[in-house]
Amino acid sequence: MTSSTEEAKSELNAASQIIDGKAIAARIRQDIAQQVAALAEKKPGLAVILVGSRPDSQTYVNMKKKACESAGIVSFGFDFDETVTQEVLLETVQKLNQDDRVHGILVQLPLPSHLDQDTILKSVHPDKDVDGLHPTNVAALQMYSGHFLEAPFSIPCTPLGCCVLLEQSAVPLRGAHCVVLGRSQLVGWPMARLLLAQDATVTVVHSKTRNIEDMVRQADVVVAAVGRAQMVKGDWLKPGAVVIDVGINSVDTPGGKKPYKLVGDVDYDSAKAVASKITPVPGGVGPMTIAMLLRNTLASFQRMQKQT
Amino acid sequence: MTSSTEEAKSELNAASQIIDGKAIAARIRQDIAQQVAALAEKKPGLAVILVGSRPDSQTYVNMKKKACESAGIVSFGFDFDETVTQEVLLETVQKLNQDDRVHGILVQLPLPSHLDQDTILKSVHPDKDVDGLHPTNVAALQMYSGHFLEAPFSIPCTPLGCCVLLEQSAVPLRGAHCVVLGRSQLVGWPMARLLLAQDATVTVVHSKTRNIEDMVRQADVVVAAVGRAQMVKGDWLKPGAVVIDVGINSVDTPGGKKPYKLVGDVDYDSAKAVASKITPVPGGVGPMTIAMLLRNTLASFQRMQKQT
Ligand SMILES: NC(=O)C1=CN([C@@H]2O[C@H](COP(=O)(O)OP(=O)(O)OC[C@H]3O[C@@H](n4cnc5c(N)ncnc54)[C@H](OP(=O)(O)O)[C@@H]3O)[C@@H](O)[C@H]2O)C=CC1
Ligand SMILES: NC(=O)C1=CN([C@@H]2O[C@H](COP(=O)(O)OP(=O)(O)OC[C@H]3O[C@@H](n4cnc5c(N)ncnc54)[C@H](OP(=O)(O)O)[C@@H]3O)[C@@H](O)[C@H]2O)C=CC1
Repeated sequence: MTSSTEEAKSELNAASQIIDGKAIAARIRQDIAQQVAALAEKKPGLAVILVGSRPDSQTYVNMKKKACESAGIVSFGFDFDETVTQEVLLETVQKLNQDDRVHGILVQLPLPSHLDQDTILKSVHPDKDVDGLHPTNVAALQMYSGHFLEAPFSIPCTPLGCCVLLEQSAVPLRGAHCVVLGRSQLVGWPMARLLLAQDATVTVVHSKTRNIEDMVRQADVVVAAVGRAQMVKGDWLKPGAVVIDVGINSVDTPGGKKPYKLVGDVDYDSAKAVASKITPVPGGVGPMTIAMLLRNTLASFQRMQKQT
Repeated sequence: MTSSTEEAKSELNAASQIIDGKAIAARIRQDIAQQVAALAEKKPGLAVILVGSRPDSQTYVNMKKKACESAGIVSFGFDFDETVTQEVLLETVQKLNQDDRVHGILVQLPLPSHLDQDTILKSVHPDKDVDGLHPTNVAALQMYSGHFLEAPFSIPCTPLGCCVLLEQSAVPLRGAHCVVLGRSQLVGWPMARLLLAQDATVTVVHSKTRNIEDMVRQADVVVAAVGRAQMVKGDWLKPGAVVIDVGINSVDTPGGKKPYKLVGDVDYDSAKAVASKITPVPGGVGPMTIAMLLRNTLASFQRMQKQT
């Protein structure tokens, strides 16, 4: 490598900006806490339903409840045994649908396989569906073309958080080519729609895509949501691309202090050398997902207050 | 041009296959007619609501009613004056929702601007929404990954027709790069989802896309639904690409026999020289849209019969 390319590369490196999801999420949570504190007596409430004892689900649910608490949002926990019946869950949701202290209902996924996840998600009243997974809200998102923070319905928290990160980082999306890796109902597909609504040109790639690297290499913005540790390498990126890494993967660290560490779907070190802006894992999209849950709960509360 | 490239080009030409939508639609309509003829006394019924006197809407409505007739499907016409109120329309839809002779309700679009199109489309019972535009059906499509002809809900007729054309023409979609031009609720966006559900890699381009030609040039399959006469030129295409032209544009033909003619969004002559398979306009997607309307009405009838 000649010294001038070395220099060019280090300049690029120097320009590469870490999108600090942790800090952005903290600011948003502070803002929400202030708004909630300023409310009269009645506060927003979030019901969190957990089935079984998956450690990751327990961790997420605890984080969500704590986040509520610190923002002044009341949280109601409903923990069920692995063997709970569909009927009991549906009854619980029905009660929460009618409970006017509750403005958001969250069913922690995945559910054990004997439960019909679709039916349970559908049973949540769309106005309280802060995860944006009810068909009414899924349809609303597909038909919506306004600003993501002005939607009169809930948008799934993770892709919503990615949009806020892009906006806060002043990434221009109009006419930009965005490549979304992954097409799940929870992340990839709603993300694609949200980018399209912001006038990006959108490509969705997935496990059946051929030449995935060539596609990623064209992208101005890459959103990786595949659940494959460090799959996207630096040399897959166009120099100056913006990278949003949704992935949370646990990899073993033999000989390390801890037995495992969390990494994204992007190979951070090599990508950082090429990207203009990039989210780290942890500390990127993860904290935004929780901030958006609080935000959706507050927004849901505000819409309900207006109605009454 | 050397003589060998001339030859190569003419070989390519020779290989270029016209996707005969008219013939495929005719076969489907015949098949539907046979199925309807084999039914016991009760026949499928389609209600067609037309507001105002736009000549194009009148033409489409007449074609749809005639197509019903020739397939043995009963059609019920509801023609309203331009000035009809929202209330009268909603009442009409309500009655049709309850009428068990009616298995499909179609509201011809566009509606005059004093009417709230969204509210009226939402008022159609999802089970009778043969256009697939009710939010319940929009959401169902976003969450569906099975075969398009096995969906237990209605899929918008035009993109559904495009899928049938691709299937009948044995175009492999898994892993293929499909570029959809246009992102409307009626065509572009549901088409993108349908292609993704068939494991294609999908790019959606629109009026804000930069370098649209470069994007189209990568496509194994191009679906054009922009409403811009002959926009996509032959030299935008990768040799051997498959081209589905949804556009119906009327262009003046000064000095011609008729004062105008219908052309697609693709420049047929130059595209035909490069594409491996291509739909003509007219005679491509257009006839399929009507065939799919009959098909959706029959499918809707069959689902309702099962329920009772
Ligand atoms: N930061 C956060 O708060 C959150 C993080 N996540 C993380 O995001 C990631 C994705 O989550 P989710 O969408 O729920 O996961 P899913 O498993 O539901 O979807 C993964 C998607 O990636 C695609 N995919 C898998 N392997 C490959 C491959 N080798 N090449 C290309 N595409 C591939 C799959 O394709 P196909 O459809 O063909 O199978 C699928 O569309 C996970 O790491 C998850 O932990 C998720 C939610 C929140
Ligand atoms: N064969 C059939 O049976 C049917 C045919 N059609 C025909 O299909 C075409 C599309 O219909 P429909 O989807 O309803 O139309 P819409 O007008 O609703 O949508 C057109 C789409 O094309 C995009 N577009 C417009 N101009 C350009 C451009 N210069 N470059 C790139 N993209 C562009 C628009 O982008 P943006 O979103 O940025 O504005 C928009 O997304 C029309 O010709 C229509 O007549 C439609 C239905 C049935």
